Amino acid sequence: MSESEVKTAKAAGTGAAAPVWQRLRLEAAEAARREPALAGFFNAAVLSHDSLTQALCYQLAQKAGGPDMNALQIREVCKQAFLEDKNIIKCVERDLQAVSDRDPACRTLLQPFLFFKGFLGLQTYRVAHWLWHQDRDVLAFFMQSRTSELYGVDIHPAAKMGCGIMMDHATGVVIGETAVVGDDCSFMHGVNLGGTGKEFTDRHPKVGKGVLIGADAKILGNIKIGDYARIGASSVVLEDVKCGCTVAGVPAKVIACIDCEEPAKAMDHLISPSKMQD
Amino acid sequence: MSESEVKTAKAAGTGAAAPVWQRLRLEAAEAARREPALAGFFNAAVLSHDSLTQALCYQLAQKAGGPDMNALQIREVCKQAFLEDKNIIKCVERDLQAVSDRDPACRTLLQPFLFFKGFLGLQTYRVAHWLWHQDRDVLAFFMQSRTSELYGVDIHPAAKMGCGIMMDHATGVVIGETAVVGDDCSFMHGVNLGGTGKEFTDRHPKVGKGVLIGADAKILGNIKIGDYARIGASSVVLEDVKCGCTVAGVPAKVIACIDCEEPAKAMDHLISPSKMQD
Amino acid sequence: MSESEVKTAKAAGTGAAAPVWQRLRLEAAEAARREPALAGFFNAAVLSHDSLTQALCYQLAQKAGGPDMNALQIREVCKQAFLEDKNIIKCVERDLQAVSDRDPACRTLLQPFLFFKGFLGLQTYRVAHWLWHQDRDVLAFFMQSRTSELYGVDIHPAAKMGCGIMMDHATGVVIGETAVVGDDCSFMHGVNLGGTGKEFTDRHPKVGKGVLIGADAKILGNIKIGDYARIGASSVVLEDVKCGCTVAGVPAKVIACIDCEEPAKAMDHLISPSKMQD
Amino acid sequence: MSESEVKTAKAAGTGAAAPVWQRLRLEAAEAARREPALAGFFNAAVLSHDSLTQALCYQLAQKAGGPDMNALQIREVCKQAFLEDKNIIKCVERDLQAVSDRDPACRTLLQPFLFFKGFLGLQTYRVAHWLWHQDRDVLAFFMQSRTSELYGVDIHPAAKMGCGIMMDHATGVVIGETAVVGDDCSFMHGVNLGGTGKEFTDRHPKVGKGVLIGADAKILGNIKIGDYARIGASSVVLEDVKCGCTVAGVPAKVIACIDCEEPAKAMDHLISPSKMQD
Amino acid sequence: MSESEVKTAKAAGTGAAAPVWQRLRLEAAEAARREPALAGFFNAAVLSHDSLTQALCYQLAQKAGGPDMNALQIREVCKQAFLEDKNIIKCVERDLQAVSDRDPACRTLLQPFLFFKGFLGLQTYRVAHWLWHQDRDVLAFFMQSRTSELYGVDIHPAAKMGCGIMMDHATGVVIGETAVVGDDCSFMHGVNLGGTGKEFTDRHPKVGKGVLIGADAKILGNIKIGDYARIGASSVVLEDVKCGCTVAGVPAKVIACIDCEEPAKAMDHLISPSKMQD
Amino acid sequence: MSESEVKTAKAAGTGAAAPVWQRLRLEAAEAARREPALAGFFNAAVLSHDSLTQALCYQLAQKAGGPDMNALQIREVCKQAFLEDKNIIKCVERDLQAVSDRDPACRTLLQPFLFFKGFLGLQTYRVAHWLWHQDRDVLAFFMQSRTSELYGVDIHPAAKMGCGIMMDHATGVVIGETAVVGDDCSFMHGVNLGGTGKEFTDRHPKVGKGVLIGADAKILGNIKIGDYARIGASSVVLEDVKCGCTVAGVPAKVIACIDCEEPAKAMDHLISPSKMQD
Repeated sequence: MSESEVKTAKAAGTGAAAPVWQRLRLEAAEAARREPALAGFFNAAVLSHDSLTQALCYQLAQKAGGPDMNALQIREVCKQAFLEDKNIIKCVERDLQAVSDRDPACRTLLQPFLFFKGFLGLQTYRVAHWLWHQDRDVLAFFMQSRTSELYGVDIHPAAKMGCGIMMDHATGVVIGETAVVGDDCSFMHGVNLGGTGKEFTDRHPKVGKGVLIGADAKILGNIKIGDYARIGASSVVLEDVKCGCTVAGVPAKVIACIDCEEPAKAMDHLISPSKMQD
Repeated sequence: MSESEVKTAKAAGTGAAAPVWQRLRLEAAEAARREPALAGFFNAAVLSHDSLTQALCYQLAQKAGGPDMNALQIREVCKQAFLEDKNIIKCVERDLQAVSDRDPACRTLLQPFLFFKGFLGLQTYRVAHWLWHQDRDVLAFFMQSRTSELYGVDIHPAAKMGCGIMMDHATGVVIGETAVVGDDCSFMHGVNLGGTGKEFTDRHPKVGKGVLIGADAKILGNIKIGDYARIGASSVVLEDVKCGCTVAGVPAKVIACIDCEEPAKAMDHLISPSKMQD
Repeated sequence: MSESEVKTAKAAGTGAAAPVWQRLRLEAAEAARREPALAGFFNAAVLSHDSLTQALCYQLAQKAGGPDMNALQIREVCKQAFLEDKNIIKCVERDLQAVSDRDPACRTLLQPFLFFKGFLGLQTYRVAHWLWHQDRDVLAFFMQSRTSELYGVDIHPAAKMGCGIMMDHATGVVIGETAVVGDDCSFMHGVNLGGTGKEFTDRHPKVGKGVLIGADAKILGNIKIGDYARIGASSVVLEDVKCGCTVAGVPAKVIACIDCEEPAKAMDHLISPSKMQD
Repeated sequence: MSESEVKTAKAAGTGAAAPVWQRLRLEAAEAARREPALAGFFNAAVLSHDSLTQALCYQLAQKAGGPDMNALQIREVCKQAFLEDKNIIKCVERDLQAVSDRDPACRTLLQPFLFFKGFLGLQTYRVAHWLWHQDRDVLAFFMQSRTSELYGVDIHPAAKMGCGIMMDHATGVVIGETAVVGDDCSFMHGVNLGGTGKEFTDRHPKVGKGVLIGADAKILGNIKIGDYARIGASSVVLEDVKCGCTVAGVPAKVIACIDCEEPAKAMDHLISPSKMQD
Repeated sequence: MSESEVKTAKAAGTGAAAPVWQRLRLEAAEAARREPALAGFFNAAVLSHDSLTQALCYQLAQKAGGPDMNALQIREVCKQAFLEDKNIIKCVERDLQAVSDRDPACRTLLQPFLFFKGFLGLQTYRVAHWLWHQDRDVLAFFMQSRTSELYGVDIHPAAKMGCGIMMDHATGVVIGETAVVGDDCSFMHGVNLGGTGKEFTDRHPKVGKGVLIGADAKILGNIKIGDYARIGASSVVLEDVKCGCTVAGVPAKVIACIDCEEPAKAMDHLISPSKMQD
Repeated sequence: MSESEVKTAKAAGTGAAAPVWQRLRLEAAEAARREPALAGFFNAAVLSHDSLTQALCYQLAQKAGGPDMNALQIREVCKQAFLEDKNIIKCVERDLQAVSDRDPACRTLLQPFLFFKGFLGLQTYRVAHWLWHQDRDVLAFFMQSRTSELYGVDIHPAAKMGCGIMMDHATGVVIGETAVVGDDCSFMHGVNLGGTGKEFTDRHPKVGKGVLIGADAKILGNIKIGDYARIGASSVVLEDVKCGCTVAGVPAKVIACIDCEEPAKAMDHLISPSKMQD
């Protein structure tokens, strides 16, 4: 398969005609052809599988398996989750598409699927979240722990995460127990949706859809971040942010508010310094 | 053992009657009963041991063991440290109790004991610190390195850490060679007690007791943080902070000062934005 | 070999007479003598090798090897890179020397060489960068992924990094695809040379030589950081910084500008709070 | 479950009422209760599975998985074989029952299922044999190689093995490419069904049903061993053996011939020395 | 330490002055000095321990540890066995001495202690045998299984083995449930003390003291082998052998009988062919 | 590459035109094409290498590497041996060719090269033998131990083995310290070239060239086996065997003597039972 075919498939991939799984397979075949040293890896991780679910459970299990719970056991848990909640795989597809659409450094679906700590951490969370709702919190916490160790991504299994989410680089992400994140959000590394310590019940942020959160930004407490808001890198957000508004600083102040567009998809996380200095 | 019994034991656990080790065992037995896939893990890590020291050395060794120094070797070093310095295990008990008392998302002692990178990183540091004072700095540095790789927690073995310390989430914590931390402090992830580069001798912060430090806060240089102070998330602290005061911002400014209570235990890391904006 | 001999060798090591590799061997022999539990490790990692290149490829391969690509395979790739581009090993020597010169907590070359995530992550990047220019981007991305998992250091293989670079502690470092970093820079952990999301082509910072960047500082967008500049911890830099200037804050403002000295080597990352508060 | 219940289940297990899988589960539950150190193992290997096929594929994969082909990959191959050829699992059940019926030292089905090299080697062969008939001889040879390494059991994947076969101890068993073995045979360790080197086509023994072959016995060449024959330990058999006959010695001579009973089931491998000395 | 000192120590080692553990340590130190590539191994396996028991439990655990039961767990079981039954370590010392005295190819105690499958398999059996008498047959069978996999040595945990036993090469040794072996016996590889299948109770050989059994010899049934008897290689013994007699052949016949000396110690397993041909 | 091309290459492989390494590569490419699940394995083990020596050292190291001495270390030792003694690789080529010529079940060179315990055990011995002559007996014994564990092949590093040797199946082979084996011999599994225990110096067999030794045959003592002799399976040979003679039985008697042809190459190990019964 030529490079142009791959590009065509990628372009088509944004539509219904060439779904995510087809693109992944094409890319894996191309990558295996170009790098024989990894051909076995691409075959085992992608080409030998019949579906995205199967391939993903293989990958999550290979990563998370260890002496306490081996890869074979984790794959069974993963498969059960995807079988019983059909919405998970739909979210996964949207997550993959999100990375492909928004990350300029990401040329293939293969990269996030196999390599990105944010993507793999998020999908392991999705399994842990399903376990949580089966009252299997013991195993859910175990999966959270593995995710934190492996990827530096610490998402409480009770948190609610939407679909189409991109977590770029991901090291140091912490998302608390009662946090809620809407669809189509983009998080850079080090994002923290934290509690305030005062409350023992509902104490974490509620983030709307399409929100873009810069690196190391902290959103603390049971506050509301409106749809399509933008949070500047290293900001500390302690109050609600309205829909379509951009905030930045320590503590964060409003920089600008526009119509409720979708900043997460645009990945425009340059916040005009002139505005910040106002 | 019924769930209510576990709760009772947990409640009692804050007093002298039900020590930490008993609670851990009860919780492990309950967890093993509820999640057979991890029953072997809970047995190996908790139930098969006779004491907290024994179980902890097993867990630290299982984690830190690798091709350069295996689990059996690390366990021996750990046991020797706990045997020769009886104060270490007392600190461990207080650390466990601290997490249980202060972290609302932590329902059991089992979670920090087996899963929390902050707890496990701190205890591995305690072993490295003991080695340091045996003039075994080579092995102490090795342990520091393993801790940084495994948990993202980088504590110099010469640093002095008190007891009753909670490090939540913990990814990215860095604590320098001449830092001192008092009892009962609480650190969120990403906390940095750093040097300033100018000095080659005593160049890191001296943190009092009961101090609460928010996520990604940096305290730089040989400065003094008074007892019960609070440091806002993402703050950069470059000057002394007085007892009972709250500081925040880049660079950090004083927000408020109260009597010398214990904010670390309250885990109230919401800093009023109205005050910050003053 | 006595401790004084080691010190002499270290002192001499800054000159041409006692090159880096000789010092490493002396230190490894001394460490093996002092800590028998790690004698096998020091022998395998340093003493059994004939050159710095050989020892480094051993160490990178031991760390990065895994089920997808084993240590033997990675070592071959590493050796090929060092063989075909003789400049890499010169950079490695300068990197080692840089850590030794600038980090007060680092007493030996052995520590960074074997243990420091920043050093090991940087050298794995150097191999990935060489692969990138061989049009082997598939394997280059694989190496980037391993580096991010193992060390929490995420450097795009296309980024251009100079020589004599120190990355201290290193957890959470993220350096983007079109970033350029000059010689003799010093980065603390959590440094981010990020894009802004708006541009798909040249979108990351261009950092001059001898620049010192504090912990968790973010430099975002295709901006220019002049030689010998200093960036305060946790700063968010969105505009060019002139040669010799110190900036700090969120967003970063100029604190002071001096003649174009070399702050990276002095490691003076205390930024006067009085100036920041101006 | 009490020991008497286990015995009852075992007794009943020879009939249709309590199939092999039910007995295995009862035994695993009992064993887990009695030996907590292995409770996790018994759960992972038996109790967490829904069927004998599932549990067996788990066990074969856990054993045979390695750096060249991991456990997840081997399990998929195993499951495919058992799915497409429903006769394999029936053979497995008869093999298990055979060990239970014939080996006095084997008190449970659990022992052969989890521990016996003969049983595990035979079942891995069954998967390799299925692969052979799918024209996947490359993978079939790989599985043969793993079986030889792990269990010391070297069965060519093209050989034809019946059902209800017991291989006791098993170290050193070698069975050649064109060998055929009937149902209900019992082999001690070191049994060799070898070729003669002269022929490149059909060159290995054809063994009837219910044959008992003693330890280290060699049967060489395309000869016929009749049903219910007995071969003495360390014999070298170079000529056909008639149904119901006992042979022994180097080279083997006929000791006695009786009606065609089933010596393999009786496991009577004492050959009267007085008769041999005739 | 010079080679002559080692020799002196070895010579003295047969007396009370230089016990086995001292010799092992001297040899390990010498070996570590001569082969730096294994210095870490010798340190971890011998030099870092305080006693023979401690070192042996380390070695058995390192070997037998795996995914089902890890090295740390096995070491605890081993230490418990040696603690509660003080006779085990005395047997171990005699076993080591036996190999040193009788095997011309064995120049050091280090070789059997670290490398010989017969020695390591025998000591693992000793632990399993202790477990058997604690009514922990589940774990005892597990240990038997590991021993068979690792060393090709299959000894039923209920068998009774004396002290001062040497098993040379050891691959393929099988010793049944009701077998008894006296002190000071020497077994070559492939020795089988087997049952006859007819009996479900006491059905294996009773071997006296000082017996020498050649490679692949089979002794079958509840028969008695007198003290100081010799069994020729590849023999099949089906009847009692009197004290001091040599037997050989298939089936075995008496070759000669002498006074009850100790052929096991002389290791004279050349059986005069002229006598056999009689 | 078509199957017919492979066959042509194989046919040609017996001549000078298509050397062993070319055939191996062709076969590996074909196998990788036919079995994608093992494509990565064939690439890593064969296709990624430049020479037979390089590929073999990779394979031996992958197999023998472990916690005591890792794969990277073993590969260096292997490469050094092949570099300094150029005759080793010539022997390896002849060994490979021997298996291909003589084993009807072996269709490719790939099988012995990657999978056959006899071939891999023999080559590991060749490295150990080289070490022995460098006075590195400590490491030589370590390699012997690994070979015995991994392959069930126990060859003393001081033994002298010729070239063009095939060891089929190989489990249980034991070859003593002072044994000598000529070129072009073929050994089945379980062959023992043993000592007699009486002598502490030269005490093992001297086997000529082209000798064929059947399964489990024992040759004991410092006796001479003439060129092109044949030893029947399970024989016990205690006296010299003349050139071209066939012996069999316990103890072995002469069956026939012919001109000094090369039975090892013909692999005719059927010994006429009529002659044995004479």
